[in-house]
This record gives sequence, C-alpha cells and structure tokens, in this order.
Amino acid sequence: MTYISELKKLLPEEQMTTNQTMREQHSRDESYHEPSLPDVVVFPKTTAEVSKVVAFANEHQIPVVPFGLGTSLEGHIIPYHGGISLDMSLMNRVLEIRERDFLVKVEPGITRTQLNKELKKYGLFFSVDPGADATLGGMAATNASGTTSVKYGIMRDQVRDLEVVLASGEVIHTGGLSAKSSSGYHLNGLIVGSEGTLGVITELTLKVYGIPESIMAARATFPDIQAAVDAVTGILSSGISIARIELVDDRSIQQVNTYNQLNYVEKPTLFLEFHGNEAGLAQDVEFTKEIVSDFGCNDIQFELDNKARAELWEVRHNLAYAFIHGFAGKKLMVTDVSVPLTELAGAIIDARKAIETEKMDGAIVGHVGDGNYHALLMIDMKNKEEVEKAKRVNEHIVNYALARGGTCTGEHGVGVGKAMYQPLEHGAAYTVMQSIKQTLDPHHILNPGKIFMKKDQ
Amino acid sequence: MTYISELKKLLPEEQMTTNQTMREQHSRDESYHEPSLPDVVVFPKTTAEVSKVVAFANEHQIPVVPFGLGTSLEGHIIPYHGGISLDMSLMNRVLEIRERDFLVKVEPGITRTQLNKELKKYGLFFSVDPGADATLGGMAATNASGTTSVKYGIMRDQVRDLEVVLASGEVIHTGGLSAKSSSGYHLNGLIVGSEGTLGVITELTLKVYGIPESIMAARATFPDIQAAVDAVTGILSSGISIARIELVDDRSIQQVNTYNQLNYVEKPTLFLEFHGNEAGLAQDVEFTKEIVSDFGCNDIQFELDNKARAELWEVRHNLAYAFIHGFAGKKLMVTDVSVPLTELAGAIIDARKAIETEKMDGAIVGHVGDGNYHALLMIDMKNKEEVEKAKRVNEHIVNYALARGGTCTGEHGVGVGKAMYQPLEHGAAYTVMQSIKQTLDPHHILNPGKIFMKKDQ
Ligand SMILES: Cc1cc2nc3c(=O)[nH]c(=O)nc-3n(C[C@H](O)[C@H](O)[C@H](O)COP(=O)(O)OP(=O)(O)OC[C@H]3O[C@@H](n4cnc5c(N)ncnc54)[C@H](O)[C@@H]3O)c2cc1C
Ligand SMILES: Cc1cc2nc3c(=O)[nH]c(=O)nc-3n(C[C@H](O)[C@H](O)[C@H](O)COP(=O)(O)OP(=O)(O)OC[C@H]3O[C@@H](n4cnc5c(N)ncnc54)[C@H](O)[C@@H]3O)c2cc1C
Repeated sequence: MTYISELKKLLPEEQMTTNQTMREQHSRDESYHEPSLPDVVVFPKTTAEVSKVVAFANEHQIPVVPFGLGTSLEGHIIPYHGGISLDMSLMNRVLEIRERDFLVKVEPGITRTQLNKELKKYGLFFSVDPGADATLGGMAATNASGTTSVKYGIMRDQVRDLEVVLASGEVIHTGGLSAKSSSGYHLNGLIVGSEGTLGVITELTLKVYGIPESIMAARATFPDIQAAVDAVTGILSSGISIARIELVDDRSIQQVNTYNQLNYVEKPTLFLEFHGNEAGLAQDVEFTKEIVSDFGCNDIQFELDNKARAELWEVRHNLAYAFIHGFAGKKLMVTDVSVPLTELAGAIIDARKAIETEKMDGAIVGHVGDGNYHALLMIDMKNKEEVEKAKRVNEHIVNYALARGGTCTGEHGVGVGKAMYQPLEHGAAYTVMQSIKQTLDPHHILNPGKIFMKKDQ
Repeated sequence: MTYISELKKLLPEEQMTTNQTMREQHSRDESYHEPSLPDVVVFPKTTAEVSKVVAFANEHQIPVVPFGLGTSLEGHIIPYHGGISLDMSLMNRVLEIRERDFLVKVEPGITRTQLNKELKKYGLFFSVDPGADATLGGMAATNASGTTSVKYGIMRDQVRDLEVVLASGEVIHTGGLSAKSSSGYHLNGLIVGSEGTLGVITELTLKVYGIPESIMAARATFPDIQAAVDAVTGILSSGISIARIELVDDRSIQQVNTYNQLNYVEKPTLFLEFHGNEAGLAQDVEFTKEIVSDFGCNDIQFELDNKARAELWEVRHNLAYAFIHGFAGKKLMVTDVSVPLTELAGAIIDARKAIETEKMDGAIVGHVGDGNYHALLMIDMKNKEEVEKAKRVNEHIVNYALARGGTCTGEHGVGVGKAMYQPLEHGAAYTVMQSIKQTLDPHHILNPGKIFMKKDQ
C-alpha cells in the first residue's frame, strides 16, 4: 500500500497502525458477516485531522470506513474494499453540558454509558440505549434506538446539530441549538442513519432529559405471544405514559435463566417501565395491572427499588450476549424488522413458524412498542446448510414485514446485510438515495459497498 | 403563454384557469410580501395528474408552485417567476384511518381542522396546530408546528410516509408504516420543510394520538417578560408533562381584549395546558402553581370546562388575526426566530428594545417551550420608511438569534423572506443544500427562488 507512507506525513506516527492484530480488530463487527482487513487503522484526535485524512483519501480514491466501537450487526464497519479504518475512539470528550437547555455537546467516540455517567451529576440522562455500549457517533450513523424509544424517540429525534466532515474534507454543521427550525433542508436527518456513507461525524449536539421524579419497572408473563402483544396494544391505546415495553419470549427467558442464574418463569414476558410523577405513576400502574390481566397475565412482578430495577434492565440488555457467549464458536444472526403495531403479533408468530420449519433454534425479543422485534439465531458459519437456513429465515421475515408496510431494519441499519432489500423497500426512492450519495461522495470513498449494493454504486 | 394550450390537453378543462381573480388569489400569501401572478392555476385531482403536469413543466422548463391554502408568511407560494400555481385543494380526502396503529393516510389538500373532525370520531387527534387552518401538504412542506409541539413534536415528527412527485414526474414514497426505521437515507425528513422545492406531496401518512384522559388549561400573568420566561424554564425543568406553554405579551392581550371583547389582565401572560391521567394532572397542576408563584405570578386562572378551554385556545389561535383585522390596509410582518431556552428572555427583551428604538408598534407572542417567539409588526406597505424600519427590526432579531445558535425561522419557513439569511445560518452546509436541489430538480422548475436566493440557484 504505497499511500500509507504519504498518509504518515499527515498525522503523528502513534495515531496510525498497520499492526495485524489491530487490523483484525477492525475487520469484523459482532455478527456473522465475513471479516475483511483494512490496510491501515487511523486514530484522529481532532476534526482537522479527520478532514486532512478524508481529503487525502478522496484525492487518492482510497476507501474510508468510520469506526465507532464495532458493535454493529450488519457488517457496517467491515472494510470490504480495504483502505482506511477511521477509529474515532480518541475523540471521546464531553465538550459542553448546557444543563438548562437540556443539551450536551460531545465528540463521536464517547459511549452512551460514559455520557450517562457525566450527565447523572446534573440530574440528566441520554435516552437511547442499544443493547451494546455503543459510541454516540456510531449510534447517530446507524440511527440506533432501544428500550426507551417508545417514549423518548430514536437517535434521530435527539440530534440538534452534527459537525460532519464531507468526502471533500470540508466541514459542515447540519443544524443548530434551538429546539426546532424550519430553515433549509433537514441535513441532521439525512446524516443520521447514513452509516458513514455521506460524511464522518466529528461532533454531536444532543437533546438530554431530566431524570424522572418516579420510575417503576415490572415483569409480566403471558400464556402466549399473541396475548402479550395484544396487551402491548392495549397499554399503548390506553394513553398510559409507558417508557419501556419489551417482549422477551420463553426461549429467551430460558437462555437468560441459564446465563444469569435466574429463575424467571419461562413464558412470553413483557418487561415494562413507567416514568412520571408519583401520583400519575400510581394510576398508570393500577391501570396496567387491569389491562394485562384482561389479556391473561396472572403474574406481574413490580421491581420497587433501584437495584432490582437496574438488574432487570441489565438482563434485558445482555440478552444477546447470553446467546453469543452461550454458543461459543457460533455467530449471531439477528433479524430486525419493524411493522405496524396491528401486524406485530402475526409477524412474530409467522417468524416462529419460519424458524421451526427450518428446524432451527431461535429466540425472539423486541422493542414491541415500536413494532420492532428480533429473531436471534446462533449459527455455525462452517456449516453451509445452517447458514443457508438462517438466511432463508431472515429473508422470510423481511419479506413478511415489507409486504405489510414494514421495514427490513427497525434500528440496526443496512450495512451489507440489508443492502439487497433496499430496492424492494424503497422502490423509485432508492434512485433518489443513490443520487444523493453520488452528489456528496462522487468517488464513493466513504464506506463503499454499504447501504447500496456494490453493483448499484 | 403558448404552453397553456398544450397544458389543456393534459387535464379536464374545469381543472385549469387563467381567470384574473383566481390568479390574483394565487399571487399572494397572508403577509407583507409583494404579490406576483401565476400564468395559470391548475387543480389536480390525482397523483397521476400531478405527475403529468410536473413532467410537462419539466420538459418545457415552466415553474410549478405547489399551493395549499396560501397561509404561509414568507412569500412561499408567490409565483415570482410566473408559471403554474398547482392548487392541491381538490385532493383533500382522508384515505385511511388505522385506528389501532395510530396512523392516518390523507391527501395533501385536507386542512387540519377537517382532519381533526374525522379523527374525533375515533377518539384520536392530529397534534400540529398552526395559527391558521392550513393544509396538511402545506404544513409538511413548511415543517409547521404550533402550540402543542412542546409535547407532541413538530410536523416532521408526525410524518411516516409521503408520496411525492419529483421534478421528473416520477412518483416516490419516502417512508413506510412502521414506527421507526434505519433503512436507507431519511427522505421523509428531507421532503418535510422543503417548501415545494424538491417535489410535490400527493399523499401523507401521519402519526395521530389518542385524546388524553384529562386536559386542563390555565392562564397565568406575570409582572414582566423575564419572570414569565423564567417560569417556563422552571416548569420544563421540573419534569411536568406540559402540553402547551404559550407566551402572550401585554400588547397582545390588549389587542385581544379589543378584538374579542375580553377583559384579560393586560400583563405578560402564559397560556398553559396539561395532558395526562387524572391523578398525574392534579399533581402537575399543584406543582405548576408553586413554580409560577415563585416567579411572581399571583394570578393563575384554570379553565375547568371544555368550552372555556376551547375559547382560551381560540383566542390564542386568532391572535395574529386580531392584528390583521385590527389594522385594515396594513400588512403583517411576523418575525419567527427560535433560540435555546436560556437565551429566550434576553432575546425577547432585546426584540422589544429594537421595536422601541424604531418607534414602532409591535406585539410579542411565542411557543416559548420551544424557544420560538414572534414579533408581530403591522406595516403600511406604501410608507417606505415604515417598511424599512420593520425590515431592520426583523434583521436585528434574526442576527441576535443566529449569534446565539438559534435559527432565523422556527416554524414559518424560508420562502423568500428568510432566503437572505440562509448562507449565514448554514455556512458551508448551504452548498450541500444547493447540490441536493440541483440533483433533484436540475431545471429549477419547482418553486424557483424559494429557500435559495435567486442568484445562488
Ligand atoms: C448485543 C448487541 C445488542 C444491540 N442492541 C441494539 C439495539 O437495541 N438497538 C440498536 O439500534 N442497535 C443495537 N445493536 C447494534 C449496534 O450496537 C448499534 O448499531 C450501534 O449504534 C453501533 O455503534 P458503534 O459505536 O459500535 O458503531 P460501529 O459499529 O463502529 O459503526 C456503525 C456504523 O456507523 C458508522 N460510524 C461510526 N462512527 C461514525 C462517525 N463518527 N461518523 C460517521 N459514521 C460513523 C460506521 O461506519 C458504521 O457504518 C446491538 C449490538 C449488539 C452487539
Ligand atoms: C394567522 C397565521 C398564523 C400562523 N401560525 C402558524 C404557526 O403557529 N405555526 C406555523 O408553523 N405556521 C403558522 N402560520 C404559517 C402557515 O399557516 C404555515 O406555514 C402553514 O403550514 C402553511 O400551510 P398552507 O396550506 O397554507 O400552505 P401554503 O401557504 O399554500 O404553502 C406553503 C408552502 O408549502 C408548499 N406546498 C403546499 N402544498 C404542498 C404540497 N402538496 N406539496 C409540496 N409543497 C407544498 C408551497 O409551495 C409553499 O412553499 C400562520 C399563518 C397565519 C396566517
């Protein structure tokens, strides 16, 4: 790679490496997707350095793949075309906390748990909580969401402004500090979810929230999936201000019991959380009890103290890891469709059937308040047949969702794994997306081969 | 206009007119901006007709200006380059109500009051409520917001999917039906707020809400603006689930008293509304009383019944009309900046000073929970000096906001009135916006001269 010696002139030596272990660490995400090595890993410390590297890459038509923590699940950060893996981990400071504006300005490499540690001192929190401890830059780039999105919204809803380095090396700001604006095109929204294909995020100004006066969590078990999902619709229709509503199926509870040494009842379960003032919460909780019992739940456990509540969500967040670590040598394939609420029960039951038809082992969990669910499949990548089976299940689930107005990815993003479904999902709008890519990154140096299928670029 | 005879072949005769009165009706909005006639007004009834007209216009490079109700305030719908005014009023049906998915699909010409009348039958409502009874297409195109945005969000937050006719005549869908998605670029967000410059919206799928169990409204008066705004920050920081929080200054109350024959105390006033369950609301109301009294309010009136509550919001919504109709012959110039909350009191006090310095009459109102406020100035367009004064006030207010991370338009949009501030507000991102415009509308037929300054296009 002759360009590397040129690149070395741009940054201090210690911010760049071609070390094999490092390149391997940047060759794979946490999923089943085939690894591929970058030529070099670069660790910028400033926006100016990012700009220099990207401008250089653009001039020499070298691929640049922004890298947060590598927790994405669809091959997003795998450098299939080689080039530079741009690791943002050294840009991880909180730059400003504007407490009374409910705003925080951060660098992209900070993780959500690091950020929340800082915010706690001010009685504030950042709401989006993917199962992995991801970076804010990665979360913005994938439009991540999580258990609290049903109340507080997804990543895109939290972004007020981004500093972005474009393919040319030019630096732009996509928004401002005010709570709303009708000024110009919505570039915040365009960059969020663009997976590093339109620019590198070097700074984020994000909305944060006051920690609510009262919080209450609960676990409710149901005779079957249909009943659990019907209860979700019931709760959402009732106007109860629900902050989290997660479905965990019996197979998942079984895995969790083994991995976390717990004794949860092995039935389809809703994990719930309520945020509000004390009086309102008490009324919501009573009303919820009535609703879930209408749908056949005769076992609802409230977690009253903070510790028990934290444990409950720890279990939920570590659920994928309970599978990953429980099946050493196997790889995780996780589906990620989202459908309208009225289609959710049908979709999950159909997914179960698809898994059974292929005689696979699979669990289902979901951010069901948003109509988003995952089938977790552990696969042996050396077993061709198993890989094919899993792919068929994934495809079946995606097609079911798309036929009902749903999306092939509710939160994980497209990467390479969902690229093939983009033309079907977006129809003629796919061409519009391609034309925007072409306009902003004419040499296709930014994370090439992601979102768009290689042949379409 | 030789093209009109060609155009007549595309649509039934009664859906097209060159009648002078009709052209005049489509030559102006409700603001001070100079009118300009379209060549012809076209009333499409279907997406296919819109597509035919736009494709024709593109081929012949004729301007097309989508027209909703013409209530915009920055010259958005004025055809400064002539061409076709595309009036969407015949496309005004509710196409589908998916009650349990909290979704509604409508044509763009329906107004928000028409829509809410339909939704009420299902116990649902659409949240965005600009002061005028605008069309949903116009509201999406301007990214409108209103009194409830502090709780339910702005227009962009409500859009799940748009059907859009591009400059080429091609029809795309920008989203889907699921509550969230990380699939592809966020075209929903790009089209919302694009003011007819990127495409014509022919169908909208929107989020709707259940009518809350309990609603309570209130009016609280304060010794001065600073105290009122401090109370707003206090309420927002407290975690109270406030649904509306509007500032109406003493000059506005005075006008409202005259126009509506009321006897409101002529002091800076907050109009408030709370949505929630009964118990939660009672606690919020008590807490609010404490907070406002901390900030010098000794007069808070709760409107207990539905009628009194409706009246209160009627007064607020008709406030601009109280000025428009109170000054026959004069025209309305309304500023529209939005700033971070901590800058709001300073901004409003500074705006007052600017108005006084120019020895003008002006009132201030605002969606203060979002940091958004308006100065209402009534101007005699024949009085050059008065026009210049008003322009200086507007410019002063915009510059103050931009210097503090705010925006030149919180909700009304850019049109022609805010085009000159776009380069300053967006910096290098302005060029990105231009390149997107150029890509999607290469002949600049779609609402030319809006958002971008003429010379930049
Ligand atoms: C166990 C587990 C559970 C998960 N649960 C969830 C969940 O609940 N919800 C959810 O949404 N996701 C979930 N994920 C997926 C993943 O955590 C998210 O996609 C996350 O946002 C990725 O963040 P990251 O920092 O690891 O980014 P990476 O994986 O490093 O990168 C992701 C993408 O963002 C781009 N990128 C990263 N940083 C930047 C930057 N600064 N500028 C531009 N582009 C950048 C990359 O190029 C890549 O395309 C889960 C993953 C695992 C392993
Ligand atoms: C008294 C008064 C109070 C107001 N209060 C508020 C307020 O509180 N909040 C607020 O946000 N605004 C407010 N406005 C401004 C105005 O009502 C909004 O901008 C509204 O969204 C405009 O809707 P309309 O249907 O009248 O659109 P129009 O004025 O007809 O058009 C507005 C823009 O949208 C485009 N457009 C219209 N339909 C389509 C379509 N189908 N496809 C593509 N583009 C289209 C037009 O080309 C134009 O650029 C107020 C106006 C008045 C007169």
